[in-house]
Amino acid sequence: MRKLILDLDTGVDDTLAISYALGSPEVELIGITGTYGNVLLEQGIRNDLAITDLLGHPEVKVYKGLPHASTSDSFQVLPISEFIHGKNGIGDVRIPDSNREPETESAIDFIIDAAKTYGKDLIYVPTGPMTNIAAALRTAPEIKDQIGKIVLMGGALTVCGNVSPWAEANISQDPDAANELFRSGAPTTMIGLDVTLQTLLTYKETQRWRDLGTPAAKFLADMTDFYIKAYETTSPHLGGCGLHDPLAVGVAVDPSLVTTLPINMQVDVEGATRGRTIGDNTRLNDPVKTMEVAVQVDVPRFLKEFMDRIGGLAAQAK
Amino acid sequence: MRKLILDLDTGVDDTLAISYALGSPEVELIGITGTYGNVLLEQGIRNDLAITDLLGHPEVKVYKGLPHASTSDSFQVLPISEFIHGKNGIGDVRIPDSNREPETESAIDFIIDAAKTYGKDLIYVPTGPMTNIAAALRTAPEIKDQIGKIVLMGGALTVCGNVSPWAEANISQDPDAANELFRSGAPTTMIGLDVTLQTLLTYKETQRWRDLGTPAAKFLADMTDFYIKAYETTSPHLGGCGLHDPLAVGVAVDPSLVTTLPINMQVDVEGATRGRTIGDNTRLNDPVKTMEVAVQVDVPRFLKEFMDRIGGLAAQAK
Repeated sequence: MRKLILDLDTGVDDTLAISYALGSPEVELIGITGTYGNVLLEQGIRNDLAITDLLGHPEVKVYKGLPHASTSDSFQVLPISEFIHGKNGIGDVRIPDSNREPETESAIDFIIDAAKTYGKDLIYVPTGPMTNIAAALRTAPEIKDQIGKIVLMGGALTVCGNVSPWAEANISQDPDAANELFRSGAPTTMIGLDVTLQTLLTYKETQRWRDLGTPAAKFLADMTDFYIKAYETTSPHLGGCGLHDPLAVGVAVDPSLVTTLPINMQVDVEGATRGRTIGDNTRLNDPVKTMEVAVQVDVPRFLKEFMDRIGGLAAQAK
Repeated sequence: MRKLILDLDTGVDDTLAISYALGSPEVELIGITGTYGNVLLEQGIRNDLAITDLLGHPEVKVYKGLPHASTSDSFQVLPISEFIHGKNGIGDVRIPDSNREPETESAIDFIIDAAKTYGKDLIYVPTGPMTNIAAALRTAPEIKDQIGKIVLMGGALTVCGNVSPWAEANISQDPDAANELFRSGAPTTMIGLDVTLQTLLTYKETQRWRDLGTPAAKFLADMTDFYIKAYETTSPHLGGCGLHDPLAVGVAVDPSLVTTLPINMQVDVEGATRGRTIGDNTRLNDPVKTMEVAVQVDVPRFLKEFMDRIGGLAAQAK
């Protein structure tokens, strides 16, 4: 069975990504590596442990990654992140702390070990800044040829960004790390705002979770309602909330959910457009394309998979 | 037979666009409307008349368009345009002036009349700023539903710009006009740097023209060699010159040369990225897509068509 690592700044949609992964029989979630972004690293780790407990999967190991970008010496949560994800990252819904602790092995070492152990069977899905994978590639560049695939949520190629007209939030947290990944040659699929702003969830769907009656389902519904409500303020034209991180997991499980453009990408790290994800003109005519960018998505099919998988998991969780 | 209008700031690759059109039996070039950009309006008109004479097609009528953007009260040729196209726009190659004069009807009126006369059979191909078509749409908005298709050369969606990291030259001359076109709902295909920087010509191909021995073929070879030489300085990584404008004509004649992404587009008219062509996030989930952006191109097939059509024309021209 294919092995999955989620690299998360957990986060409402990160929580939905965990749920989608645990509801997918095609993959085994072998670990969550923590990063910063929607929340501080420590809060994200706390959430990962508590959420996997609540979803009935306390076997999922959690690893601590780096707490900030290599170009910075600290990280603070942006007010807009708090507005969208709540102070605790999960829509200010309270769930019990886990009794478990994160592993002592670092996220970086775990990613490298997993790439060497599982090779082409390993899919790594980062849905926050690319800080951890960039550090892993710096430590062990050979994993770029060993790892099966990287499916990231981040960036915006054919649409505007969400923290500026050109930058998407995950990439803008650490443009240099993302640029290292994009230029590394590692087989990488970018699931950006191009497609994630097309996959929208509404109160109608969260009500279906609530109707399941389990604590896990009620938690997911309450948390996601907080997120939908924030979207009513930040993106009123959408009519729902973007399913960013779970779409990346969806594509990791089933690439046919999206249509991709093979292209060699870069991240602007200098100048006015720092944080923009764009084609690398110097590698435009290189016949080898190391990345694919999702530009279209089968919205009805993804939403059905999303509801079936998460609903199935939440109905069973004690 | 389908009718073609070329809207040109002639220009080396504009000249190749005229040649491609005249070498294409599937379309009738019913007129050239002049604009500014690579050269001043007057120089472009002079070139259009002289070039159609030299290519053996003095029946092609030439119409004067607007001399500058509506947001400006004058236009000056940029030093980089002179460097790439020469002071006279055609690689500083001298060809005889035409005895003809441009028509007295304005380009704007001609475009509107042609849309009403030919309707869905009309393809309009602007390869400079979008100033003339924006003015026509302002005067007669109904032509957006009457015209067959607009196939423009300009913009950059998945790659960097060529006058700034985000802006392509044609669009940057008049971002407001391009934004009016992009948001108008007129059926428009964008042939941008995404694909035109993949279709490259080298001295090997221009030598084949030179070998034909006609004055027209020698002119095209000399002019294009100037252009290739400029590219050696401005874009040494490419290994040839971009066939920007002729690719737009190629797609107007045969849309299957490119793969397009259906998308509703905008041009940034404010802020740091003025002149950028990008998806309009507010119309991302509108099921009706009024534009298509070329993201892949069949390079060998286009180059073969390009050489066959222009070679055939140049061999026959007296």
